[in-house]
Amino acid sequence: MNITSTEKACPPVLVVVGGGFGGLSAVKELDGKPVKIILIDRSNHHLFQPLLYQVATAGLSPADIAQPIRAILRNQENVTVVLDEVKEIHPETREVVTGDLTFHYDYLIVAAGARHHYFGNNDWEPLAPGLKSLEDAVELRRRVLLAFEVAEKAPTPALREAAMTFVVVGAGPTGVEMAGAISELARFTLRKDFRRINPAEAKVILIEAGPRVLPTFDPTLSESAMNQLKNLHVDVRVNSAVKRISEGEVQVNETVIPTRTVIWAAGNKASPLAAMLGTEVDRQGRVKVNADLSIPGHPHVFAIGDMITATYDGGKPVPGVSPAAMQAGRHAAKNILHLIQREPTEPWNYFDKGSMATIGRNAAVAQIGSFKFGGLLAWAAWVFVHLLFLIGFRNRSAVFLQWIWAYFTYGKGARLISGPTGRWGILTLTKHDS
Amino acid sequence: MNITSTEKACPPVLVVVGGGFGGLSAVKELDGKPVKIILIDRSNHHLFQPLLYQVATAGLSPADIAQPIRAILRNQENVTVVLDEVKEIHPETREVVTGDLTFHYDYLIVAAGARHHYFGNNDWEPLAPGLKSLEDAVELRRRVLLAFEVAEKAPTPALREAAMTFVVVGAGPTGVEMAGAISELARFTLRKDFRRINPAEAKVILIEAGPRVLPTFDPTLSESAMNQLKNLHVDVRVNSAVKRISEGEVQVNETVIPTRTVIWAAGNKASPLAAMLGTEVDRQGRVKVNADLSIPGHPHVFAIGDMITATYDGGKPVPGVSPAAMQAGRHAAKNILHLIQREPTEPWNYFDKGSMATIGRNAAVAQIGSFKFGGLLAWAAWVFVHLLFLIGFRNRSAVFLQWIWAYFTYGKGARLISGPTGRWGILTLTKHDS
Repeated sequence: MNITSTEKACPPVLVVVGGGFGGLSAVKELDGKPVKIILIDRSNHHLFQPLLYQVATAGLSPADIAQPIRAILRNQENVTVVLDEVKEIHPETREVVTGDLTFHYDYLIVAAGARHHYFGNNDWEPLAPGLKSLEDAVELRRRVLLAFEVAEKAPTPALREAAMTFVVVGAGPTGVEMAGAISELARFTLRKDFRRINPAEAKVILIEAGPRVLPTFDPTLSESAMNQLKNLHVDVRVNSAVKRISEGEVQVNETVIPTRTVIWAAGNKASPLAAMLGTEVDRQGRVKVNADLSIPGHPHVFAIGDMITATYDGGKPVPGVSPAAMQAGRHAAKNILHLIQREPTEPWNYFDKGSMATIGRNAAVAQIGSFKFGGLLAWAAWVFVHLLFLIGFRNRSAVFLQWIWAYFTYGKGARLISGPTGRWGILTLTKHDS
Repeated sequence: MNITSTEKACPPVLVVVGGGFGGLSAVKELDGKPVKIILIDRSNHHLFQPLLYQVATAGLSPADIAQPIRAILRNQENVTVVLDEVKEIHPETREVVTGDLTFHYDYLIVAAGARHHYFGNNDWEPLAPGLKSLEDAVELRRRVLLAFEVAEKAPTPALREAAMTFVVVGAGPTGVEMAGAISELARFTLRKDFRRINPAEAKVILIEAGPRVLPTFDPTLSESAMNQLKNLHVDVRVNSAVKRISEGEVQVNETVIPTRTVIWAAGNKASPLAAMLGTEVDRQGRVKVNADLSIPGHPHVFAIGDMITATYDGGKPVPGVSPAAMQAGRHAAKNILHLIQREPTEPWNYFDKGSMATIGRNAAVAQIGSFKFGGLLAWAAWVFVHLLFLIGFRNRSAVFLQWIWAYFTYGKGARLISGPTGRWGILTLTKHDS
């Protein structure tokens, strides 16, 4: 950063948009390299997204799975971190524009991720929020915990039952995790906390439009996951499409379910920045990148992570998971070094290390290569891998202790309702004496 | 809760308003006693308020110092916890009214605490928020951390300096803690995080209307605290009155200080519920209780904690600290048992165990009986006492580990900016290239 142009040649400027797994991996790959990096993110923290559902269900605190981006990169001298939201990208003039500032770049990596996809029903978002950011997780935690409070005060059995019904839409990994974790919260953690309701009577309903849960996994694992969900008393409904969401109810196929808590885990849509790159996007708004991860027509612009669509091993779609984002980030960084040295870029091939989804205590599924397994062993593997990945996060030991503690006590450490509790949402309570 | 009136006489109903140190101590004292307790609080958690400044300065996470009230009382069968905000108290008809519900009581303990006192300048509140609740702490943390982000992007030296100026109003224990903690955050934790600013150049200004800091402590300790604050580069200004607070500046005496972060720690005002008890209140809205902590004219209604004014040892005012609230809570509970058994109530006498205020790492003051000391010894005593009091909080070990870690690394674990970061408040940034 202290290079004066009279002494040395100015290094080229790389702007990286997004400090998630993809963007951060690209930046770290370029540590010590002759490039000036500007990393722009609209939040000040990097998020360990695979554990976000734990914050939403009060198992972990926000700070346990988030780390300030500045702190992560404090010793990497060729990076400037900017807290700001990118509004526009202009590949023709090589400019990135935030609300206040304009950044010129020589190279660009866009790693802006994805948000939820409501398939044309954007009015459902406030009624059925999803889970992508810490703010999402804290909001879901507030809704889930408040639902039990509302049930405890509900004046009629019908209102009580609606308050204690939780509908999770979409049975991918996030939906399965949320459904399992809410059921465990109700059946174990909150068991003795209330006087008028029995939290174990909570109904958790998992809705899936397709014929099986975890559709990206092997069918035998879908069946294993289905059985493990049933053991956790989750009511799984496949071949079920959400037709309507309104205050106080969800219509699934022809059935109307009264509920005050709906969680959306049914689909992703790429960041709107994808559409600003001036190239083709698919139905989920994802950029169709070249083999080397650059954008068609703009060899100095790269896109990575959940906002791209790519294939590997001759046609299989790359999944929207953190290992894929990290591999792509490192690969894009290497290709930028090639370009700086006037060498040809290399095509990216995703290396699949396997997939896992956790369902609850001792309950998970995993497929690693041709090995497919469920239950306690898969759960142990899931815990091991997630602790391993938390390396670099200074809170790893705190998370580990929290998990050990929670395993033996079923206690949840972060059961805070943030924000207003005075408004009771859709349930109107009538006066009654205690 | 399972007593049927045909088998046993119905126990009397005690309503407790507020689950802070006072209310919770009263409830716990009545564990197993023949009284049906309804504890009403507007938040779902009990807060370890003495460490709230640590959340506001990113040292601890909200969940580290808060515990769900339901979890604390889950095994005490004679308590029902209600999450609701009390709007009205009617001592004549023995009713407590929330938004939705009306509760009849035989006995009442009001322990609703205090909020900030702006001495008639309530329009200062959004510009200079105080520190009483977790929401307050998260908001202050957001403002403090965001100030450095704004400074990093500021286009002119004047705007940068304003962004890096922090004004704390009021040099009681909270003001001293906040000033010291912000200075340490800037000088140590954030030291290497920025590229354009040097966080150590932040100015922390502590404003006190009176002639010395920590006015409730012995004058020798005020002087010790003053020196310790100076060592931490805090600019302490005594005999300084805030005349005006507006967006972007504070006027102190005749001096105008440009700043975007003002923290209010200058005074307390009792909960508005105090005025509903139909008895005399002092200038800070605090109830003048009888010697037995009951309300004049209502021997079955008790008030405790920060919302009362009381004296001890022949005229000294009882301080607004947690040990006083806890002692009063237990005493009010015992007096209610006396009333139930048709015995006379007993007067309360506060037992002063001493006072401490922390300033920073190795910096504090303490007076315990006739012992008065400052510096490392006082700081060690402060840490010891606060860890001791955290017993009962299941997060004690996590907090302890966090402290040990922070002590050796100067790292702050909870450096999250929650909520919107897109709006930059009072500083308008003009376009400029990176």
